[in-house]
Amino acid sequence: MTGHEIRVGVLGASGYTGGDLVRLIMTHPRLRITVMTADRHAGRSMQAVFPHLGMYDLPDMIAVEDADWDDCDVVVCGLPHGTTQKIVARLPDHLRIVDMSADFRLRDMNTYAEWYGHEHQAPHLQPDAVYGLTEYYRREIATARLVACPGCYPTAALLLLLPIVTDGLIDANDIIIDAKSGVSGAGRGLKEGLLFCEIAEGIHPYGVANHRHAPEIEQEISLAAGRHVLVNFTPHLIPMNRGELLTAYVRLADSRTAQDLEISLSSRYADEPFVHIAPKSAALATRHVRGSNHVLLQVYEDRLPGRAILVSTLDNLVKGSSGQAIQNINLMFGLPETTGLEQASLFP
Amino acid sequence: MTGHEIRVGVLGASGYTGGDLVRLIMTHPRLRITVMTADRHAGRSMQAVFPHLGMYDLPDMIAVEDADWDDCDVVVCGLPHGTTQKIVARLPDHLRIVDMSADFRLRDMNTYAEWYGHEHQAPHLQPDAVYGLTEYYRREIATARLVACPGCYPTAALLLLLPIVTDGLIDANDIIIDAKSGVSGAGRGLKEGLLFCEIAEGIHPYGVANHRHAPEIEQEISLAAGRHVLVNFTPHLIPMNRGELLTAYVRLADSRTAQDLEISLSSRYADEPFVHIAPKSAALATRHVRGSNHVLLQVYEDRLPGRAILVSTLDNLVKGSSGQAIQNINLMFGLPETTGLEQASLFP
Amino acid sequence: MTGHEIRVGVLGASGYTGGDLVRLIMTHPRLRITVMTADRHAGRSMQAVFPHLGMYDLPDMIAVEDADWDDCDVVVCGLPHGTTQKIVARLPDHLRIVDMSADFRLRDMNTYAEWYGHEHQAPHLQPDAVYGLTEYYRREIATARLVACPGCYPTAALLLLLPIVTDGLIDANDIIIDAKSGVSGAGRGLKEGLLFCEIAEGIHPYGVANHRHAPEIEQEISLAAGRHVLVNFTPHLIPMNRGELLTAYVRLADSRTAQDLEISLSSRYADEPFVHIAPKSAALATRHVRGSNHVLLQVYEDRLPGRAILVSTLDNLVKGSSGQAIQNINLMFGLPETTGLEQASLFP
Amino acid sequence: MTGHEIRVGVLGASGYTGGDLVRLIMTHPRLRITVMTADRHAGRSMQAVFPHLGMYDLPDMIAVEDADWDDCDVVVCGLPHGTTQKIVARLPDHLRIVDMSADFRLRDMNTYAEWYGHEHQAPHLQPDAVYGLTEYYRREIATARLVACPGCYPTAALLLLLPIVTDGLIDANDIIIDAKSGVSGAGRGLKEGLLFCEIAEGIHPYGVANHRHAPEIEQEISLAAGRHVLVNFTPHLIPMNRGELLTAYVRLADSRTAQDLEISLSSRYADEPFVHIAPKSAALATRHVRGSNHVLLQVYEDRLPGRAILVSTLDNLVKGSSGQAIQNINLMFGLPETTGLEQASLFP
Repeated sequence: MTGHEIRVGVLGASGYTGGDLVRLIMTHPRLRITVMTADRHAGRSMQAVFPHLGMYDLPDMIAVEDADWDDCDVVVCGLPHGTTQKIVARLPDHLRIVDMSADFRLRDMNTYAEWYGHEHQAPHLQPDAVYGLTEYYRREIATARLVACPGCYPTAALLLLLPIVTDGLIDANDIIIDAKSGVSGAGRGLKEGLLFCEIAEGIHPYGVANHRHAPEIEQEISLAAGRHVLVNFTPHLIPMNRGELLTAYVRLADSRTAQDLEISLSSRYADEPFVHIAPKSAALATRHVRGSNHVLLQVYEDRLPGRAILVSTLDNLVKGSSGQAIQNINLMFGLPETTGLEQASLFP
Repeated sequence: MTGHEIRVGVLGASGYTGGDLVRLIMTHPRLRITVMTADRHAGRSMQAVFPHLGMYDLPDMIAVEDADWDDCDVVVCGLPHGTTQKIVARLPDHLRIVDMSADFRLRDMNTYAEWYGHEHQAPHLQPDAVYGLTEYYRREIATARLVACPGCYPTAALLLLLPIVTDGLIDANDIIIDAKSGVSGAGRGLKEGLLFCEIAEGIHPYGVANHRHAPEIEQEISLAAGRHVLVNFTPHLIPMNRGELLTAYVRLADSRTAQDLEISLSSRYADEPFVHIAPKSAALATRHVRGSNHVLLQVYEDRLPGRAILVSTLDNLVKGSSGQAIQNINLMFGLPETTGLEQASLFP
Repeated sequence: MTGHEIRVGVLGASGYTGGDLVRLIMTHPRLRITVMTADRHAGRSMQAVFPHLGMYDLPDMIAVEDADWDDCDVVVCGLPHGTTQKIVARLPDHLRIVDMSADFRLRDMNTYAEWYGHEHQAPHLQPDAVYGLTEYYRREIATARLVACPGCYPTAALLLLLPIVTDGLIDANDIIIDAKSGVSGAGRGLKEGLLFCEIAEGIHPYGVANHRHAPEIEQEISLAAGRHVLVNFTPHLIPMNRGELLTAYVRLADSRTAQDLEISLSSRYADEPFVHIAPKSAALATRHVRGSNHVLLQVYEDRLPGRAILVSTLDNLVKGSSGQAIQNINLMFGLPETTGLEQASLFP
Repeated sequence: MTGHEIRVGVLGASGYTGGDLVRLIMTHPRLRITVMTADRHAGRSMQAVFPHLGMYDLPDMIAVEDADWDDCDVVVCGLPHGTTQKIVARLPDHLRIVDMSADFRLRDMNTYAEWYGHEHQAPHLQPDAVYGLTEYYRREIATARLVACPGCYPTAALLLLLPIVTDGLIDANDIIIDAKSGVSGAGRGLKEGLLFCEIAEGIHPYGVANHRHAPEIEQEISLAAGRHVLVNFTPHLIPMNRGELLTAYVRLADSRTAQDLEISLSSRYADEPFVHIAPKSAALATRHVRGSNHVLLQVYEDRLPGRAILVSTLDNLVKGSSGQAIQNINLMFGLPETTGLEQASLFP
């Protein structure tokens, strides 16, 4: 290991994204965890909160107000939506912040208030927040103080759609995104709907026509399209722990073909270490990216004339959250972007 | 028990649809199984093939050529696609036939040849085959000799879409059906893709833009629309045993609303014992119909103007196959249609 | 339907055992539900609590103190342990009571206090409570006012062990029971350990050496052995909704063989409609009894001289709870014991 | 990266253990894959066989007879049992061999013939084969040409039992091992019993009293005990991809306690990087070791006097197979033993 150690504070370390961040940091050659907060679990050890990490030498959980920020160079927030903004507003200036919650993703404060049901508590910080979709905001992320990592669904949707919207290959007003996610995306909170018996051996849609990731997708698609667009975004809960697969149904622009979409994606991501266009010999599956930071994309001709079908898949806790957070930290601290993210996918 | 006993032969009794048919018949007051064939398992007992039915007094498996058809009033075919037609062509005239395979579903022999890769072996029987979507072909089924039960996906799609296409409420040329199915729909054959480890903890699409249930759906939608239409039909495999959920994305006809769709469905199915419009207080889930013959439908407004989202769910082995077969047998033999199909759904 | 209708009150109808009881009653020809209580859900419909039963005409949930007991002939209690005893103590005398909780299973009030952490609230009722293991207490159940249905694990353990202990074929002081259960056995309460992500893709033991079903098993084994015995009972949680499988390791009495055990079981259960000795051609699996009231038993020689291995399996919500409750109601009201329990197992 | 590159040939690269070996090598700083064989898949790419590894630059599959052994320093065999011995016998002398099959685990050729149903094909190699249980045969492994990695179950059993047998703390003639495994342990072959629908939502024992891992466990326990012993070994199949959990029931030697067992294990493994004694605050679960090379052990007092309960868990594909293979390669080539095995467990 060469170079200085980067000291990381993990806020909300007892949730699934927090836990997966810790997992990834355990093999990152330059990051070291110095602070872990988990208000409900303050005073407890990592062994107690996440036994799968109990064999490592890690600090105990503390309450966020007990953290010594002088011990940290960067904090990563895995807190529930709505609570991050208040905490971030009080953090000392020397700290750089990578937020995995939704608090700083929406640029428009009215849109935030509309979808989250309350006024934003730190609107003054929003203008400086950089949207942390690494492949699209590298330059801004490198110098940002506050990076707002995209939601898992928006990451999967935007990596799939931005190039073809930017290139004008599809009708941006007719995008249908049928999404399927593993259960960890819903967090570790106690809700009847998250009990094993309410999920296993079944599938159901949720948040139909009103999921909070829709405005986030629309924000970035609108920027790419150059005008305000809406999207259909319909998520479904799948009886699996991890993984997300999006099937997008799009209308081609005049005289465009599915092949044009594939060329656009291949060209855009040719040099990306984590985004891959997969051959159609095997249909994409979430299990192809489990535990890794990889994203796979695929394009199909539709049976309906003038339409195409696109598919993307990623691990919601890695590229959809903690992995992308580390990718951004690497950028912010001048490390090679793939550092600590080299794990291959775990199958089966 | 009153009335005469109806003697049933089950062809292909060692597959999942065959097994579920036997399960349902075990509590049917008028049906008795007299013949069970399973070529690969000829000579074996039910205990050996399906231990969960081993406690019942059932005939052993025999080869189909060893069956004594004088012992049967009706045969139900749960054979693989392509083999049924040859066997059915040789059955004596007194037998009525309920086919759960795809062999007699497509009215057009060219379409059959195109999708199944070979000429049909019994085209002379096709004109007399009745499409066994009970809620739409009751009168014809009652008197048919040969009933071709719909596929599981077409059942879920057609019950959801036929009323609103018939009523002209949507654009029949812009129907997108994103389907999700449990694994039993793929049968009990030995394929690497059906191994536990290739499915658990993951999801993937399959047969994108070329699944054989597309032409079957199109056939009936075209009849309802009064012109030939194509549909987008994109199935996904879900890590669960049973159940099917369809999310359909439709474009509304001018000035029509999602509420109009719901009214159309409610009106069409008001008197149906097995088809229900569910309130939106809880999103539909396959687990709401597990093991039962019920179908649930739901309509949502889309976030995209001029569009709507529809959802349907059923158990692929029951209403999607064996249950509908029994519903049709009930009609064919003058029994109340719900006889033997009263089981409530099994949850969890 | 012949004969009078028996009116059933279901206390705690919003839990999994309550829900499965309702499912079974839906096809029982003589039982009708007139009252359903669920304190936390009072005022809600069945559709809201259990959408899979939303298509039936059922009373809304009410608080237990609002129930009109004149509408009931029998109440079935699916309440959490510890609360049943207080409610039962206040029920009018005309009501017969079938309790699916643990409150009246232990005959010794000191044992109850030791394992449940508080003094029993209705010790005066305990002497009249009959232990509801149907196959062993039929005569007493038929005339009992209060039947305490066994726990799911004790049902699986006792049906497996009682005959061979009674017949003196094994050393009752050296019984090891390694148990595996689906998650529904833990109920529908909100606990982190019951979240999907804490259970799927994993297995773990729980309650090692201190599970509350141990003293219940010991109580009945001791009666059969004619002296006080302890047992090793070690349960494990399996990522499945339903089902229970017990693997018991026993030391044979002098000169006894595994075959003697099998003969003892076969003889004891020859006339039982729900208890079956399965051939060893296929190992027992919980999926062989899913959704049904059947119990399967199997005996194996051990590789260790002088020992044998026994296996039993049942559905924890059916024979392990609601199904056995109905079996007992049938006895209490003079109906054939299998009435309403004829469903075959659901597989896959 | 320093030091020479070690060139690895993977024989049987299309199976689950082969695939997991490749996954681990992808982040190993010193190993490079130069040859991959898969007879049935010869000519196919890694993308075709394992899409989750399709983004890496790996050689295509070839038939084993087409391999150029000059390109390899070591070969790892993930072939089916029975085929390895023939292939290994023909390998050139310069190659070192790490075998993950069962072919060279049993020292006694008669025992091999008895359990595997045929005479061993390369008995002359057996005397030089070292049993690859790393924590017990480090010195021999370092210099061995042929290392026979233990089975997954024996690894979990022996790490748990060897210290306490060696220390004379338990009766070696009364060991009962109730084992639970994920499905990947059964391999990727096409068997009806491995289909998703035959496993999901269920559990069953298999190989009761005659599983081939019993003699392997007995071989090493006998060495530790100083006399020939038999064990009860009863495996169960769990509906999960990976992971293995063993619950062992043992009789304590006179005046010994469960605490003595814990002390023995803690002492024996104090300096081991991958073997940990877990606190009893949380019961062991396979999910605590998923994807990692860690093994967790736990000791409980039994309710039965004079007995104790022990639990161990590991990932069957990592420490139970590929991970241990790499651990041994590290030893054989003088690398730090943990090289490339630092991945933390993946949860959820």
